[in-house]
Amino acid sequence: MNRAPLSPTDRSTVRRVKSRAVTDRCALDAVLDNGLVCHLAVIRDGAPVVLPTGYGRDGDTLYLHGSAGAHSLRIAEGTEVCAAVTLLDSVVYARSVFHFSMNYRSAVIHAPVRHVIAESERLHALRVIVEHLAPGSWSHAREPNRKELAATAVLALDLTESSVKVRSGGPADEPEDVAAGVAWAGVLPVQAVWDAPIPADDLLGRTDVPAHVLRRCGAGR
Amino acid sequence: MNRAPLSPTDRSTVRRVKSRAVTDRCALDAVLDNGLVCHLAVIRDGAPVVLPTGYGRDGDTLYLHGSAGAHSLRIAEGTEVCAAVTLLDSVVYARSVFHFSMNYRSAVIHAPVRHVIAESERLHALRVIVEHLAPGSWSHAREPNRKELAATAVLALDLTESSVKVRSGGPADEPEDVAAGVAWAGVLPVQAVWDAPIPADDLLGRTDVPAHVLRRCGAGR
Repeated sequence: MNRAPLSPTDRSTVRRVKSRAVTDRCALDAVLDNGLVCHLAVIRDGAPVVLPTGYGRDGDTLYLHGSAGAHSLRIAEGTEVCAAVTLLDSVVYARSVFHFSMNYRSAVIHAPVRHVIAESERLHALRVIVEHLAPGSWSHAREPNRKELAATAVLALDLTESSVKVRSGGPADEPEDVAAGVAWAGVLPVQAVWDAPIPADDLLGRTDVPAHVLRRCGAGR
Repeated sequence: MNRAPLSPTDRSTVRRVKSRAVTDRCALDAVLDNGLVCHLAVIRDGAPVVLPTGYGRDGDTLYLHGSAGAHSLRIAEGTEVCAAVTLLDSVVYARSVFHFSMNYRSAVIHAPVRHVIAESERLHALRVIVEHLAPGSWSHAREPNRKELAATAVLALDLTESSVKVRSGGPADEPEDVAAGVAWAGVLPVQAVWDAPIPADDLLGRTDVPAHVLRRCGAGR
């Protein structure tokens, strides 16, 4: 897939350790498509507030949703917000404590809030969010009715002003510490792993775990 | 351990789905002690910015650190910031897409920034951060020298104004969807799992993986 490179503005330019900045648009999609939780920062009463929330991506748009009554989504149209998705890959053990680090992939998005009003786009956004959270579920579970759709607020963020930062590899120790062999050094990988599905206590009817759920936890390949 | 309950202020009061709010101080410590990455939100040029960073907790203080030259840590003393740590436990599959959800534990901290100036507290904070990131490493690896310590900025956030939100259990479906058995429902647990350590390519001297690293990934019990 060919994608235009990211076009970072001043605030989305990675300043610290520029070698970790990635300007490939596919890298942004990869981080967003591999995460499940984003952290959304807004300003409330003059102070920053950050809250975790689910999301979904469709092309150049990140969709967020919540209850239409939620305080956290009462953000005026066009207000600048910031969202981050971070994937931790490993802890980096170095010879000196100064060089301990983490390997990670992170995406940070700066965008004005767009409230999704049209019912057709809200339905589309919910599908994107649900399919991101639980692939295969939209066609399996009951679709939202008018009342449920009306109770759901959807926000859209344009992905144009985004940055991606990646650290990978081993520790960046001082040469004299490497030569002296003062400590063990390496990385300890960490990854998010799915466990076996746990059916609901009150499950009736379709009690077999469906293929789309089994596939996700590696039991249905 | 007896802890004073959290004393939420207006902005740290959980508004949406109050049943998920937890006011037990030990719950805050448990979330912070089980996470590795926090998302720190600050205001820059009138817009919110959120960035991932490591941290460590000592009692009622959350310590963050970074390069003394880092743009992201240039925050004036006393400026209000917000930090969140989120642990994802499972994806909740419901009978209707409206009720899809996530089980999670999250902590949100509102606090004015305190710059840690005294060398003794900075050294202590770095120890707390490194021991949180990689338990057992402070006494194993080389301690920071004066130059490294001078190159490190440390911020402290007081944990008094914090909130904890937890969702657990199965889907909250509509009774008619449960009775009709319209779809499979349950939870798909997800957890962060350590893999086997990968030694650095240029490892000299202490080449055996030390016990404190093996213990972490479950190989040294």
